Amino acid sequence: MSTAPQTSIRSGKGPGEAVGIALLGFGTVGAEVFRLLNENADAFAHRIGGPAEVRGVAVHNKNKLRPGVPAELLTDDAEALVRRDDIDLVVEVIGGIDYPRHLLLTALNAGKSVVTANKALVAAHADELAESADRAGVDLYFEAAVAAAIPVVGMLRRSLAGDQIRRISGIVNGTTNFILDAMETTGASYEDALAEATRLGYAEADPTADVEGHDAASKAAILASLGFYTRVTFDDVHCEGISQITADDIKAANKAGYSIKLLAICEVLIDESGKKSVNARVHPTLVPKDHPLASVSKSYNAIFVEAEAAGSLMFYGNGAGGNPTASAVLGDVVGASRNIVHGGRAPGENTYAHLPIADFGEVLTCYHIDMEVADRAGVLAAISEVFAQRGVSLRTVRQENGNGTARLIVVTHSAREAALEEIVAKLGDLDEVKAVHSVIRLHS
Amino acid sequence: MSTAPQTSIRSGKGPGEAVGIALLGFGTVGAEVFRLLNENADAFAHRIGGPAEVRGVAVHNKNKLRPGVPAELLTDDAEALVRRDDIDLVVEVIGGIDYPRHLLLTALNAGKSVVTANKALVAAHADELAESADRAGVDLYFEAAVAAAIPVVGMLRRSLAGDQIRRISGIVNGTTNFILDAMETTGASYEDALAEATRLGYAEADPTADVEGHDAASKAAILASLGFYTRVTFDDVHCEGISQITADDIKAANKAGYSIKLLAICEVLIDESGKKSVNARVHPTLVPKDHPLASVSKSYNAIFVEAEAAGSLMFYGNGAGGNPTASAVLGDVVGASRNIVHGGRAPGENTYAHLPIADFGEVLTCYHIDMEVADRAGVLAAISEVFAQRGVSLRTVRQENGNGTARLIVVTHSAREAALEEIVAKLGDLDEVKAVHSVIRLHS
Repeated sequence: MSTAPQTSIRSGKGPGEAVGIALLGFGTVGAEVFRLLNENADAFAHRIGGPAEVRGVAVHNKNKLRPGVPAELLTDDAEALVRRDDIDLVVEVIGGIDYPRHLLLTALNAGKSVVTANKALVAAHADELAESADRAGVDLYFEAAVAAAIPVVGMLRRSLAGDQIRRISGIVNGTTNFILDAMETTGASYEDALAEATRLGYAEADPTADVEGHDAASKAAILASLGFYTRVTFDDVHCEGISQITADDIKAANKAGYSIKLLAICEVLIDESGKKSVNARVHPTLVPKDHPLASVSKSYNAIFVEAEAAGSLMFYGNGAGGNPTASAVLGDVVGASRNIVHGGRAPGENTYAHLPIADFGEVLTCYHIDMEVADRAGVLAAISEVFAQRGVSLRTVRQENGNGTARLIVVTHSAREAALEEIVAKLGDLDEVKAVHSVIRLHS
Repeated sequence: MSTAPQTSIRSGKGPGEAVGIALLGFGTVGAEVFRLLNENADAFAHRIGGPAEVRGVAVHNKNKLRPGVPAELLTDDAEALVRRDDIDLVVEVIGGIDYPRHLLLTALNAGKSVVTANKALVAAHADELAESADRAGVDLYFEAAVAAAIPVVGMLRRSLAGDQIRRISGIVNGTTNFILDAMETTGASYEDALAEATRLGYAEADPTADVEGHDAASKAAILASLGFYTRVTFDDVHCEGISQITADDIKAANKAGYSIKLLAICEVLIDESGKKSVNARVHPTLVPKDHPLASVSKSYNAIFVEAEAAGSLMFYGNGAGGNPTASAVLGDVVGASRNIVHGGRAPGENTYAHLPIADFGEVLTCYHIDMEVADRAGVLAAISEVFAQRGVSLRTVRQENGNGTARLIVVTHSAREAALEEIVAKLGDLDEVKAVHSVIRLHS
């Protein structure tokens, strides 16, 4: 039997002793973390068992005025800061990958515990970071990396540690949920809804990482790793964004009783021989209106978890923003600081299951296919044949006739992704099919 | 500065060593805990760092057949079991107060960690149990005591440890939510909905503890204690049940845009001088239909948390039943067992804030008052005067005229509970008021 990867017990500094904190980054989140640590200093001291003292703040330009921050705390030498003897805990809220990776490895190797909000870094390099933390016997926390203040990391790592997760389905990107929700409630086009999201500050000037699903894919990798005790990285996640979703798609979905949501879905597949594998994917998904995920509006996030014993659980809240992210970072600061004062370590990365990553073609999904077809006899027979040949059965078929053409909306039963992809390609080649307007998967 | 009450670091048994578990009780939850520990033994060993072995099961009648349980594990001497040298962790799923209290104090004093699902025990005797755990340097876990598989204890104790909770509003009793939801969806009377709940197994033969709010009050005491770092016990909770709610109340609430839910509400009050106090209460509450709590149907539970930095969060899931409760118990078993193997302790009870319990009359609420009044001029003036004299302003007034009488529905702005109680008493004395049909508080 292999054992959980916690290697050694760490003895604490002792109750009442202060914890020295290095804050890397002073953007929206960093400034909130600093402010709240100061404003609620008494509460933090009581909850930790000793004062939490920010002893250095690493910034790009240390000459820029930062109201409320004593000048002597500011430094532009982050690397020197994380090595300092009076630093016990490094809090990283810079973003990016290579630079914070270098800093956090330096910190861990120097025996400092680490709290990071950096999803891209964790999704790409969790193994390396976890190994350094294990070697040094320190903690690595990253609650804020997924869905900000929604405590999904702690929930998967601790609360559900006695259960077997079957599937995690999450709305983990506020920008895309805002856009899809606006399209649904106002009938706006994708372009107009994106413009509105940008105007209101929900979308960045370059929205690619959000709208193409990359941000959600990082979070899917982290969720799958935690839920299935298997290393899943960003590159393992199949990713499709929302930029192809039209106002027409939303309208058709609504009419059929669905909302379209960008979901991060993580699940375990079991093949005929009982062999398990893990799939993590991000794509626009038709969610039945009576499913709790369908009513998650605006820029809210929610994580829906299905587990063997717990059944269905949902966690809902603010998935982004300075304050909610600071809340998650500070919960980690209390946890890591408590261990620094009292000794002990949090449960670390544990990938004992080592499940293989599933081939995406093996994933079972249902398709909702909206196409324009010729308005003549025999069309439905020709189309049905394409599905039947590949062993895919149809759940519903709806035809709306116009003048000379007809719209055909087909919903399949669950089938292998590879078969469904082949079917869509084949449908495009049929004379009877004038256009395949959209192909959207269903949440079942 | 006082320090958090963790007193000592505990060193572990060492990776790979087995954890000896005593299971007290073999009802629905106990049987599921036993089954899942066996079925998923490999997963537990990997997550803990050593095997979790049930070495004794204490039952009332050890001669009763328990399929799957080796006879040599069964004992009717629970007290001897919890003292045994080969037991490291005691899991209590018996229920009741005095007997499990005695057993768990015995276990803690003998240096065993404890996991309990017993809300009544924790709500009444948390101080005593926590002190024994601290003295012995062991863990006391009770995630399953509130809302079963919804990990609200861990969330308050760990994830939100860096935030300041403002209010917790929870649907924490599945029986009453099932009854209220059935009344709303079918128009049934309270009596018929209760009968249906009993028939389907959602209500016990004697439903008093559920329908009168006592079960929810235990959970409110636990939530308030955790959220506000202050000891709140069952006796501190103001408690009103749902047995007075009529089909008419539900209909009127719906018409006005509300659902009626039995809420456990825990909040911090701040008086004019800035002095803080804690209030915990359970009562039927009008929840606006667009609030996430309003859509919690059937026997589901949900906890809505408002915090300074995190904003609003909601946690939703199965709040009762053998499997969901077992999920929460087993998450605690993994946590406590990890600490037994690797050393360290979980954050214990921490009541550093020591806030006073608010006088219930000082609580600010809004009232929805439904009364029958005389259908003549001057009635509204007389009634308004009663509110005005006590400084309470009205948010809405709606009058429906019949033949000779009229129905008047008044919703107040937020006001002191004491003033509102006085007003209701005074209204009952007015000649103009023929009957006060219902008085229900609003969630604002």
